[in-house]
Amino acid sequence: MSYNYRNFRNNVPWLILFLEAVFIVLFYFLFSEDVAPRSRISYPAFQDVNHMVIFGFGFFLTFLRRYGFSSTGFNLLIIVLGVQCSVLIEDLLVFLLQKPNEDGVKRIAKAAVSMTAVVISTGAVLGKTNPLQLILMTVVEIIFFHLSRWINNTFLEVPEDIGMMHVLLFGAYFGLVVSSYFSEPSPRSEKNASTPKSDLLSMLGTLFLWAFWPSFNSVLAVNYKRRAIYNTYFALAASAVTAFLLSVLTTKDGKFRMTHIHSAVLAGGVTVGYAAHSIEYPWIAMILGLLASVITVLGSYCLERCFNPAMKMHDSSGVHFTFGLPAVLGALAQVILLVI
Amino acid sequence: MSYNYRNFRNNVPWLILFLEAVFIVLFYFLFSEDVAPRSRISYPAFQDVNHMVIFGFGFFLTFLRRYGFSSTGFNLLIIVLGVQCSVLIEDLLVFLLQKPNEDGVKRIAKAAVSMTAVVISTGAVLGKTNPLQLILMTVVEIIFFHLSRWINNTFLEVPEDIGMMHVLLFGAYFGLVVSSYFSEPSPRSEKNASTPKSDLLSMLGTLFLWAFWPSFNSVLAVNYKRRAIYNTYFALAASAVTAFLLSVLTTKDGKFRMTHIHSAVLAGGVTVGYAAHSIEYPWIAMILGLLASVITVLGSYCLERCFNPAMKMHDSSGVHFTFGLPAVLGALAQVILLVI
Amino acid sequence: MSYNYRNFRNNVPWLILFLEAVFIVLFYFLFSEDVAPRSRISYPAFQDVNHMVIFGFGFFLTFLRRYGFSSTGFNLLIIVLGVQCSVLIEDLLVFLLQKPNEDGVKRIAKAAVSMTAVVISTGAVLGKTNPLQLILMTVVEIIFFHLSRWINNTFLEVPEDIGMMHVLLFGAYFGLVVSSYFSEPSPRSEKNASTPKSDLLSMLGTLFLWAFWPSFNSVLAVNYKRRAIYNTYFALAASAVTAFLLSVLTTKDGKFRMTHIHSAVLAGGVTVGYAAHSIEYPWIAMILGLLASVITVLGSYCLERCFNPAMKMHDSSGVHFTFGLPAVLGALAQVILLVI
Repeated sequence: MSYNYRNFRNNVPWLILFLEAVFIVLFYFLFSEDVAPRSRISYPAFQDVNHMVIFGFGFFLTFLRRYGFSSTGFNLLIIVLGVQCSVLIEDLLVFLLQKPNEDGVKRIAKAAVSMTAVVISTGAVLGKTNPLQLILMTVVEIIFFHLSRWINNTFLEVPEDIGMMHVLLFGAYFGLVVSSYFSEPSPRSEKNASTPKSDLLSMLGTLFLWAFWPSFNSVLAVNYKRRAIYNTYFALAASAVTAFLLSVLTTKDGKFRMTHIHSAVLAGGVTVGYAAHSIEYPWIAMILGLLASVITVLGSYCLERCFNPAMKMHDSSGVHFTFGLPAVLGALAQVILLVI
Repeated sequence: MSYNYRNFRNNVPWLILFLEAVFIVLFYFLFSEDVAPRSRISYPAFQDVNHMVIFGFGFFLTFLRRYGFSSTGFNLLIIVLGVQCSVLIEDLLVFLLQKPNEDGVKRIAKAAVSMTAVVISTGAVLGKTNPLQLILMTVVEIIFFHLSRWINNTFLEVPEDIGMMHVLLFGAYFGLVVSSYFSEPSPRSEKNASTPKSDLLSMLGTLFLWAFWPSFNSVLAVNYKRRAIYNTYFALAASAVTAFLLSVLTTKDGKFRMTHIHSAVLAGGVTVGYAAHSIEYPWIAMILGLLASVITVLGSYCLERCFNPAMKMHDSSGVHFTFGLPAVLGALAQVILLVI
Repeated sequence: MSYNYRNFRNNVPWLILFLEAVFIVLFYFLFSEDVAPRSRISYPAFQDVNHMVIFGFGFFLTFLRRYGFSSTGFNLLIIVLGVQCSVLIEDLLVFLLQKPNEDGVKRIAKAAVSMTAVVISTGAVLGKTNPLQLILMTVVEIIFFHLSRWINNTFLEVPEDIGMMHVLLFGAYFGLVVSSYFSEPSPRSEKNASTPKSDLLSMLGTLFLWAFWPSFNSVLAVNYKRRAIYNTYFALAASAVTAFLLSVLTTKDGKFRMTHIHSAVLAGGVTVGYAAHSIEYPWIAMILGLLASVITVLGSYCLERCFNPAMKMHDSSGVHFTFGLPAVLGALAQVILLVI
């Protein structure tokens, strides 16, 4: 530990300084702003995504006691580094592929949406990594994410706005892969503990994400924005109801458990992410939301008891069942809806 | 208690499941979306109301120590059930009365505004009811509220947007009536206790409601939206000032008391709810705000000392003087302004 | 203390009542609303500034343990008094100088921006003043601020929207001047103490300000609003990165320190306040953000060790280096950019 600490102290500031210097130099060459006004997004939509990433995910991950500051303060460092990196990669792609320029505000909003992948991955490795590793993971993951988007877009002919929704799936499984390279902290250690107070803060983050999810699903939609909004709202409503229902059914004393609600309440929003603007009737979104919640709660049982010990995986915040499984369901639903 | 608890454990999940299944089936038959674009509301306005209901009222009611989780988490369950129920009743009315369809986002915003009635009633019975009773109350109250709106609209010829503002008055007195059927918890019991920390969270909820109240009063206004916004702002400002003033005057040590400010700071917004868009000069709104605060603080003294013990009522969060009395004042003011 | 307290108890309510009565009478004579629609600002932009002043600055100043309630509750009283006062002075200037009327919502937004001066000054004198003094300071400072704006506008020919950005510089140095008239509380006293919990709340306030700063810098800009938004975002990003970097470098154990991040993370936004809409390339904004952070962290060392003891100044929340120095840098940068 002591060696690691010295190592960390020596390297972290220089890594950050190096990255920021590279960013400023690249911004000098790559960032240009002459755009057609029609490609703009509204400022409140941008702010919603910005708040969601900074506050929502920041507090969503505060449930481990020792990471109160890490997950609000350090979350900010990761996000600002990642957003700058993501804007630059996007600009590089625009430059290389001769695509039309986009509005500066929209570019930051897209970068913030991309950053949810990194924030989710962070949830899987929380408590096992040091800041140096997290910063490196941020840069590497953002590069891989844009690569995967480019592959989806070019070879699988996935439209731009749906390709972006891929971000939750990518984040969850990237995080699990990274997490498998780190040893599990001993279960007795303080690093895994949560307190009632940190649970309440975490609930605050969950409510924040819940309330902003319709913005997240509609911010980059080109058409049928309003349909994306209300479908997401009803999917979230159905999965919130199901989360409370399953929480009472699966606990012995018939009380609501914060952890179930924490993970299952968002499942509906994650699942309809791909199809929110193309679902014609809200009852379809509601059924998807209900299924997503069921999968999340069942998944949390199966994964934590069978799969994870067998695979020797350790998923600190349960991102596999919170974001991974519902996103897989959503991708399947989107394929089925396209076929129909 | 033990019998109640077993009963509750057996019934709550099936009630929730039944409601959600009914909602999905009814959504299949009732929800249709082909609207004239002019009946839309802006997405940020919808989000303001959504946040206000979920965060503002959620934290406003956290001041009882044992209900920290109830009033953030359980509040969410009640709101999503109520919003779905309210959207369906509205759709049924549209279908039965052959009215023109409205935008999906606007329908959710209207449902969220209707839900403030239920959230306020919850404040009056907090600590005396179990979840089963609260869920049933939600459904019954939403049905009664839409019935009362329909009566107001048809027989009293109250315009649609003012009829909606009726929600606070309805919520407060419905809550008081329901509360009178439950026995008062013993004053020594832990259920009535508040802590400095829960007081601070409650203050956070109050500030949230204070900042979002102009959105609440203007979201459904058809004309003079901006006038509704600034009149509400100045009424809230005047009642905030009066709340601090009366708090210093009525306490023995000349300090500000959180409970006074908690209840009186919002009175101005409640009072101008009916007339916000029709008041021509802000000084009228300011005088209404000042009077509303005075009534709330005086009301809290008279009601808690004389009226409530005499009527054997118990009003956990003081919704009678926080929302009931200012809304009565606002209704009177609206009648006087109409006559002039 | 006892004499002060009696004095305070006798005077505060009458001062507040007198101010509110004067405000209502003046509103009767001065406030008129017939405006060209083009001078409007959007409601979400108004709400962003409103939330920033009420929540952001409210929690930003909670880091002293004894002032949890003061800085959320009392902050509200000061803001509503100041906003009413500021709207009236603006209306008086419109009346005296025969300028065209502005939209009611825009007038409140401008008043809320002006109030940041008072809130920052409050930070410098926190823990040394009683409520009576703070209320008087609010009214006097708002009058002086509008006077300085009028002088800047008339004699120095500073455009209206840049003159408004002057608010942070004015607030910081007005606060320092007022602070020098009060004796420093003894360093051992409880009034200066902070707790981990109040630090976390303070971090929440900082994040709030960070996320809303682009709104603050763009709300009153007439042209190039979107450029102001993304330049501010990138400047804030660069200064957040630099704040973390310098925090690791300057502490002995190589850990992030909340106090450094608290003050330096916002420096970039403060610095580009003047020039956000006129900077053509984001890399310039990023370099300004980086420099601003460096100046803030270095400034906090130099001021606290050399300057403040020598000048016998005591700056409770460090507003000199948090807002004062970056604003001076921003003003210099604006002059240099204008010359080029």
